[in-house]
Amino acid sequence: MSTRAALLSIGDELLLGEIVDTNRPYIAQQLLTLGISVVRAETIGDEIDEIAEAFKRALDCADIVVGTGGLGPTDDDLTCAALAKALGLDIVFFDDVMIQMAERLKRPVEALSGSNRKQAMLPRGAFPLKNDWGTAPGVHVRVGTDKHIFLTAGVPREMKGLLAARILPILRGIVPVPQAVVIKSLHAWGIPESVVGERIKPLMQAGLNPNVGTRIGGGVVSVRLVAHGRDTAAAEAALKPALEHVRAALADGLFGEDGQTLGSAAAMALRDTHKTVAFAESCTAGLATSMLAESPGASAVLMQSAVLYCNESKVRECGVKPETLAAHGAVSQETAGELAAGIRARAGTTIGVSVTGIAGPDGGTDAKPVGFVCFGVATERGVTTFERNYLGLDRNTVRLRAAHQTLDFVRRAARGEY
Amino acid sequence: MSTRAALLSIGDELLLGEIVDTNRPYIAQQLLTLGISVVRAETIGDEIDEIAEAFKRALDCADIVVGTGGLGPTDDDLTCAALAKALGLDIVFFDDVMIQMAERLKRPVEALSGSNRKQAMLPRGAFPLKNDWGTAPGVHVRVGTDKHIFLTAGVPREMKGLLAARILPILRGIVPVPQAVVIKSLHAWGIPESVVGERIKPLMQAGLNPNVGTRIGGGVVSVRLVAHGRDTAAAEAALKPALEHVRAALADGLFGEDGQTLGSAAAMALRDTHKTVAFAESCTAGLATSMLAESPGASAVLMQSAVLYCNESKVRECGVKPETLAAHGAVSQETAGELAAGIRARAGTTIGVSVTGIAGPDGGTDAKPVGFVCFGVATERGVTTFERNYLGLDRNTVRLRAAHQTLDFVRRAARGEY
Repeated sequence: MSTRAALLSIGDELLLGEIVDTNRPYIAQQLLTLGISVVRAETIGDEIDEIAEAFKRALDCADIVVGTGGLGPTDDDLTCAALAKALGLDIVFFDDVMIQMAERLKRPVEALSGSNRKQAMLPRGAFPLKNDWGTAPGVHVRVGTDKHIFLTAGVPREMKGLLAARILPILRGIVPVPQAVVIKSLHAWGIPESVVGERIKPLMQAGLNPNVGTRIGGGVVSVRLVAHGRDTAAAEAALKPALEHVRAALADGLFGEDGQTLGSAAAMALRDTHKTVAFAESCTAGLATSMLAESPGASAVLMQSAVLYCNESKVRECGVKPETLAAHGAVSQETAGELAAGIRARAGTTIGVSVTGIAGPDGGTDAKPVGFVCFGVATERGVTTFERNYLGLDRNTVRLRAAHQTLDFVRRAARGEY
Repeated sequence: MSTRAALLSIGDELLLGEIVDTNRPYIAQQLLTLGISVVRAETIGDEIDEIAEAFKRALDCADIVVGTGGLGPTDDDLTCAALAKALGLDIVFFDDVMIQMAERLKRPVEALSGSNRKQAMLPRGAFPLKNDWGTAPGVHVRVGTDKHIFLTAGVPREMKGLLAARILPILRGIVPVPQAVVIKSLHAWGIPESVVGERIKPLMQAGLNPNVGTRIGGGVVSVRLVAHGRDTAAAEAALKPALEHVRAALADGLFGEDGQTLGSAAAMALRDTHKTVAFAESCTAGLATSMLAESPGASAVLMQSAVLYCNESKVRECGVKPETLAAHGAVSQETAGELAAGIRARAGTTIGVSVTGIAGPDGGTDAKPVGFVCFGVATERGVTTFERNYLGLDRNTVRLRAAHQTLDFVRRAARGEY
């Protein structure tokens, strides 16, 4: 039985739906590395009684509670007051917090404003956690002998700093760490989630070690394995057979692990084989190139690209024949092939790759509907062309799928498939 | 006092932090248009008793409960069973749901699997909501005389379809709509959030109508105004003076409203002035062009772009002088100016714009650290160059800021500023 945690995200802006809460998944993943499972997460607005009740509910179901947000200087920042109310504690002034704040702001203590002073008011008995990334200190409160509450600002940079440098070290000392946890994600392209699900069905039953789940995003199928063991070696031993099963199930579609993307996988394949690439992009308009360039060091493998939105530029920049455009149209395997060969010749790269399609919402026909996309791959062995249908998707989803497919072609071309 | 709602997001993948919950903010915003305020949102895993308890807590604090996720065909999808448990209801088989499912899958009812059959088991007395976007029906359950629970699948496409076509129409009939709500967002670039906050401070006090909040993302400062009134005209009347105040505060930085982005604002400015653009991108590697192309109809204003990652391509494609590169480097206002002029001449567009910078993590020097970016804007009136420092940010944040700045230059150039 692993240690249980509850997370509270506090702020009207979260409830109003103005921003997406990225703190919650981040904290959950960090806690999981210590074997701490998040069993519930709540989002509440800036209302003191609602926040106080949420702290009580969280303590009912968990040993570790992490609250983010509501530590700012303004009157709608109520987290410390609400926590004090929930625990029946006074709010008191912490001199050392005020001194740290003055040092950070490079001003004398007397020059600090009333709103800074408010940020030095914490529940009696709390341990302030020094914040090197902003003004509001983190807070650690022990409840009874074995429950712990931690508070951080909601600004992701401050939360991440406090979590890594203050909270996780404390948790490492607190948590019995009955089990080590090893988490592995495998990513595949070009294989339907339902096929993957069928192949790894025996691994997906509840209660198994590792726990295995799938998800899909932008057409990429990801399988996550979470293994437990008395130590890391035991967790890895539990992981191994399932990992091999998943690898076999993803087969040829498997392109990366953990934090890898199709862009980083393509860049790595190019680097490993000492090849270079240039893109000719129409409907994706630079998205595929930009995703490759997200990887540090992309400049070793990416020379240049051309976004060729109008027909004239396809002819002028990549030597597409006007007859090809007239006979087959801009969105055709014929045009895609000439674009790929053209950009490869122009840039002098090992690989040239092209993508041209109908992203919509307009421009579709019965023969070539919105979502119809053609691709070309040019290498020293010649030109190969492809088509795909991303039907029923909106403009920018079609563009994302097409960019992902383009990057997969680059990865495969680097490995010598074309 | 507006109607109160609670949201439940159900699924281990959300608790484990594998995916960010984008359903929650979307639903909150949709409900707000009916004057329904989300007062609490919970995330729970695939554990039947935890889910049942969460439904009870939600009904304690809200009149409307919307649950997403856990309606799938596999054994870890437990939302219907948990809701039945929470309300003390049986789970029963709905023939008509099975028939609809068979129609959607284009198979005879007898051919459906046991897992499809599971998706036709709903709490007794529930109203199934036809799902035209997937297999799992939505669910509507009345609790007593004035509380309502709605369930949808967690897949965003299915959730959005069911919300728009089934749930919101029902809510329009249920909710007293004591007040109309008008929501307006204004977006600005190039003005610090602290300056905006200072200028609109009087509007940001608690309890005012409209409620005003700010947020920042990718360097864009957004101000949200939520106005209430007995009808839409009254809400708009309440909104108007605050809206004018915010417009004045954002001044020249204001580029768009509501769903607009820097990309769509640039595209609209070009369309309105019958101008065209081509980009020469180095560090952003196609990101600025791709963001412009997110707008439907971008092909009317975007002709082509060049991603010029290596120095040779800057010389060959845009006529940057080797002496300029030797004397000032690839990241310099001099090179940026020649790139902008070169791409404008090559593409034959009204406007040519360039961006070249040090995205990191490597390549920074004392004189040109990571985050140093240069820009060029070429028009019929000549070439103007700029530099910006995005210090202390990571590679892809620098790239995003630089792409945003490039798009703002396009917008301003279209309006004749350069």
